[in-house]
Amino acid sequence: MAAMRPPTIDAALRACTRSYRSPVCRNAVQPKHSLANVQRRWISDGSRPPLPPGVPGPSKVVAPKTRLAVGVVFIGTLIYSMATGDKPPPSQTPASGGLQLESPTIAERDNLSKRESGVTPSSPMRLRMEAFIKENQQEIVRALEAVDGKRFQQDKWDRPNGGGGITCVLQDGNVFEKAGVNISVVYGALPRAAISKMRANHKALDPDVESLEFFAAGLSLVLHPNNPMAPTVHFNYRYFETANTDGSTNAWWFGGGSDLTPSYLFDEDVIHFHRTIKDACDAHDKDYYARFKKWCDEYFSVKHRGETRGVGGIFFDDLDETEKDQESLFAFVQSALGAFLPSYLPIIQKRKDMPYTDREKQWQQLRRGRYVEFNLVHDRGTAFGLNTPGARIESILMSLPLTARWQYQHEPDKGSREERLVNVLKKPVDWV
Amino acid sequence: MAAMRPPTIDAALRACTRSYRSPVCRNAVQPKHSLANVQRRWISDGSRPPLPPGVPGPSKVVAPKTRLAVGVVFIGTLIYSMATGDKPPPSQTPASGGLQLESPTIAERDNLSKRESGVTPSSPMRLRMEAFIKENQQEIVRALEAVDGKRFQQDKWDRPNGGGGITCVLQDGNVFEKAGVNISVVYGALPRAAISKMRANHKALDPDVESLEFFAAGLSLVLHPNNPMAPTVHFNYRYFETANTDGSTNAWWFGGGSDLTPSYLFDEDVIHFHRTIKDACDAHDKDYYARFKKWCDEYFSVKHRGETRGVGGIFFDDLDETEKDQESLFAFVQSALGAFLPSYLPIIQKRKDMPYTDREKQWQQLRRGRYVEFNLVHDRGTAFGLNTPGARIESILMSLPLTARWQYQHEPDKGSREERLVNVLKKPVDWV
Repeated sequence: MAAMRPPTIDAALRACTRSYRSPVCRNAVQPKHSLANVQRRWISDGSRPPLPPGVPGPSKVVAPKTRLAVGVVFIGTLIYSMATGDKPPPSQTPASGGLQLESPTIAERDNLSKRESGVTPSSPMRLRMEAFIKENQQEIVRALEAVDGKRFQQDKWDRPNGGGGITCVLQDGNVFEKAGVNISVVYGALPRAAISKMRANHKALDPDVESLEFFAAGLSLVLHPNNPMAPTVHFNYRYFETANTDGSTNAWWFGGGSDLTPSYLFDEDVIHFHRTIKDACDAHDKDYYARFKKWCDEYFSVKHRGETRGVGGIFFDDLDETEKDQESLFAFVQSALGAFLPSYLPIIQKRKDMPYTDREKQWQQLRRGRYVEFNLVHDRGTAFGLNTPGARIESILMSLPLTARWQYQHEPDKGSREERLVNVLKKPVDWV
Repeated sequence: MAAMRPPTIDAALRACTRSYRSPVCRNAVQPKHSLANVQRRWISDGSRPPLPPGVPGPSKVVAPKTRLAVGVVFIGTLIYSMATGDKPPPSQTPASGGLQLESPTIAERDNLSKRESGVTPSSPMRLRMEAFIKENQQEIVRALEAVDGKRFQQDKWDRPNGGGGITCVLQDGNVFEKAGVNISVVYGALPRAAISKMRANHKALDPDVESLEFFAAGLSLVLHPNNPMAPTVHFNYRYFETANTDGSTNAWWFGGGSDLTPSYLFDEDVIHFHRTIKDACDAHDKDYYARFKKWCDEYFSVKHRGETRGVGGIFFDDLDETEKDQESLFAFVQSALGAFLPSYLPIIQKRKDMPYTDREKQWQQLRRGRYVEFNLVHDRGTAFGLNTPGARIESILMSLPLTARWQYQHEPDKGSREERLVNVLKKPVDWV
């Protein structure tokens, strides 16, 4: 998921394919090369097994506006290679006596740092963000298991040089039709073309290098409850960083947001959701809520229906040093993510056991269909991921509901609760 | 739906938007202009009401490879404006005393011709194709009603100057979960940019005019049966033509195809489906079936899953005078469309009442999910239509099943019938 402009997935994919192949040599079995530092480090960082022919690697980042989409691809590709259980061949591992490092990669630095001193408030933001989202994933999973009474299936992958993923899924639960809580931590390299395009939003990016190491970490959640009176909810919080050749931080930014998608409107629920998020925003900047609420309504627009996906929340991206210092923004992201359980738990507790009719369940299924339409047609992260050969499709499409419905020319009855929802989706409301 | 290359919907949309606004002046209330013949005819042809600001008209045709996509848009936009019940304002109708025609539009010629002498074998191909698909739509609807026992809902629109649409839908039937049979006949104008791009495939297009009148007519069908043992089926047959300023035919071509999407494989069904289509092809050209079968497997590829949508059939496009003369190609299209009922009716009769388990119904629902994925993610006609403001969404998304399902990491059991289907979808089979 990313910003507002119309998707240019194809152009991005083509640009990626071009730029990927040229600047960064990936064939680690070639015995000799004369490459710049970064390239040599890339070849020997041992972080990735060789890819099959025609499968592009995770360094497919191009346009600033496809950044989050790319995040999904990075994550998808990483999880894919982890899921296949491939290990880097011996000639690629740093300890193998193959090509030697001139300086360690940030992945290696981070690994060493974690082993030696753990993660402390003076650790690099990469490690602090990773630790923060891992802790929150487990806390959220525990809280949701307490609500549902059923356990999440947890799939975890670790890689020796750092980075990995944890996918937690609960399907056909007592309360949740489908619930997913995912972490991805990715180390990789951005080719030159990607860097120069990203500079539009981040001037700190050095336009004169052939490639830059990057780090991306994010936590995503989607919950689709069984009861049509209980709303679907989604959030994603992420951190992105590029490194200079000496391993120091080059550019960095935070992105994220949380939004609610009810089938039936309970104003008190929507007000509570927005109020909780607004309070978290207000503690950091009195302008945040209004700015990010608007951004959310604009991003989660099912354009071909002239509706928003749901009743909104907040959405933001590219928050870097031009916005505020890193500590302040991390504190804000912590508060925003921390607001999730208080924003949603009271709602699901109140709605999960409400009585409902078959007709109401069917309306929920039609709204699920719209959710699918947004995610498959408009969400640029999903589109980019699906267009990337080798991406882990099951992780990308975990956001889809278990069941959905499309009915020709379905119109809600005049004056009905269903009609009221649609009216609100056609014209977003200021809830607080 | 169109050809093989990766979609360039965005680029096409941008190009359309640019090219649309410049060469063809659409503001019929401006009192004076100095425009070329074609433009004056366009302004006064009365065929379309003024569009609201920002709503592109049906002349958004650009790249040859987006031709079928554009067909959907034309159709969507046409049906939309018809559905809104808008009539051209008096100043736009030919009889209003506004701008006068230098020569009648092809829509006017066709209307007059139909009134005076009906449609005969010596009528223009436009009228013969329109008559042919209208007749076949009714024949198919009657045959399907006989199978289902329930009636189709028929929505019909006519426009005074020719062109129109008939949408026939049967939902929640005894046999069909959702069945749609749609006709669209569209008259419009192609701007210069569209013409020059289309010349890649059709050299007859004159590159030196500012705009060309066009005609498009097509019949589409999608049937989603209730019984998981009965396959989903789809076809689309269409004709496209551009006119010289004197009303004579400039360029023309046919496109079409038919494909089968089972949840459970019955080899005899698939062989019968392909055999019937092959016989229809062979009667016209011994190479057609092999060429168009391959084209079908390539087009209906759910790329991100590494599967075809179903077990194929045929798909073709751009069949013009470089392929065969117009009469021969029309005869082929008539045979191909005529093969539909014999190709499918014996299958649905045999499968519609077969016993099935809940588990088999659930597998069908998962396959429906894949159908949704293809149509929303990869089908360029759908994507183009959904990205076009003002398109009639209900007509575009009528192809979606009533219900669908997505399950995290669902894997068919080893050696099961479900696994065999997936294996066939991963590696298309030569059935006849």
